Amino acid sequence: MSNESKRERSDAVRNRRAILEATDALLAEFGADNVSIEQIAAAAHVSKGTIFHRFGNRAGLMRALVFDRATALRDAVVSGAPPLGPGAPAADRLLAYFDAMFRLVVDNVELMIAYDDAAEDPHAEAIHAFWYGHIAALLSEARPDADAEVLSRVLLSSVNGELVLHHIRTDQTERLAETIHDLVESVVTHRH
Amino acid sequence: MSNESKRERSDAVRNRRAILEATDALLAEFGADNVSIEQIAAAAHVSKGTIFHRFGNRAGLMRALVFDRATALRDAVVSGAPPLGPGAPAADRLLAYFDAMFRLVVDNVELMIAYDDAAEDPHAEAIHAFWYGHIAALLSEARPDADAEVLSRVLLSSVNGELVLHHIRTDQTERLAETIHDLVESVVTHRH
Repeated sequence: MSNESKRERSDAVRNRRAILEATDALLAEFGADNVSIEQIAAAAHVSKGTIFHRFGNRAGLMRALVFDRATALRDAVVSGAPPLGPGAPAADRLLAYFDAMFRLVVDNVELMIAYDDAAEDPHAEAIHAFWYGHIAALLSEARPDADAEVLSRVLLSSVNGELVLHHIRTDQTERLAETIHDLVESVVTHRH
Repeated sequence: MSNESKRERSDAVRNRRAILEATDALLAEFGADNVSIEQIAAAAHVSKGTIFHRFGNRAGLMRALVFDRATALRDAVVSGAPPLGPGAPAADRLLAYFDAMFRLVVDNVELMIAYDDAAEDPHAEAIHAFWYGHIAALLSEARPDADAEVLSRVLLSSVNGELVLHHIRTDQTERLAETIHDLVESVVTHRH
């Protein structure tokens, strides 16, 4: 690769990161309905054209942001600090994972519901497969008597967008957070 | 009401019952894709016109059948034999209810997924409200420390059509049945 194309590629990586970080910060401050592509471009010091070139459209940018956050959670699970990362007992890691996953869904619930309706996506399927594998591996340790594979699907379905959205809209988000925590705790401490 | 209109009304009730029972029996024997309105009419000893007059179309008939089955489960819960009906400990009644609800979803999964997509229906809302109230009342007894209202929604969402359909299609229906039973058992036996 020439020095020039290397520099172009590293510019592209830097721009992508700057755009996603600017989007994240602006959404947190103003909410999804009140952030324009113009504002994002200005905050990331890029042109609107760069954003559309890289992400296609607004929906593409939002999808990329959700994947970026999901990838950050995956990294924390694989190599971050315990109890989310390795080094804590399986039951504690499961509780930390479901708490973190719940926050990820709460913060992205409108995007996730919109995205669930979209066609199947290999990127989304890969990350779902990773979650199921992670939960099932920890369940096998914490609950060797249970059917870890099926139970991982049942537990993760309890953090579904429709249920989360209902509780956000009725101002019961923290009640749902505590209930899902309680559910996972019931499962990991159950003894036949 | 004249004797004539009383007789007409009791004929209508009898026809409705005969049509639903014939549909139920034929679906169980041949599967939803292999049963025609003609076969149902013949088995129920009514005309095709009577079926369309009463249920609108095929989808309307299938929806009525699901409600008929849901109403039968509600009756069993309100006034049937324990452990589904009154008279058993709350934990046993919850386990019996989720087992029965799981079978109801399994037997009607394609219809339920189609129906979930439909517009909101007061009949469907009433029966959902009844399920939530029933589960929450029993949870309040079995798990006085838990948030019964939110937990009833989380637990019932674990018996969702998409999850059930995935397990039917991958020949894991009984594994899912056992896992949901295990989940409810974990919840009702959990102690802080």
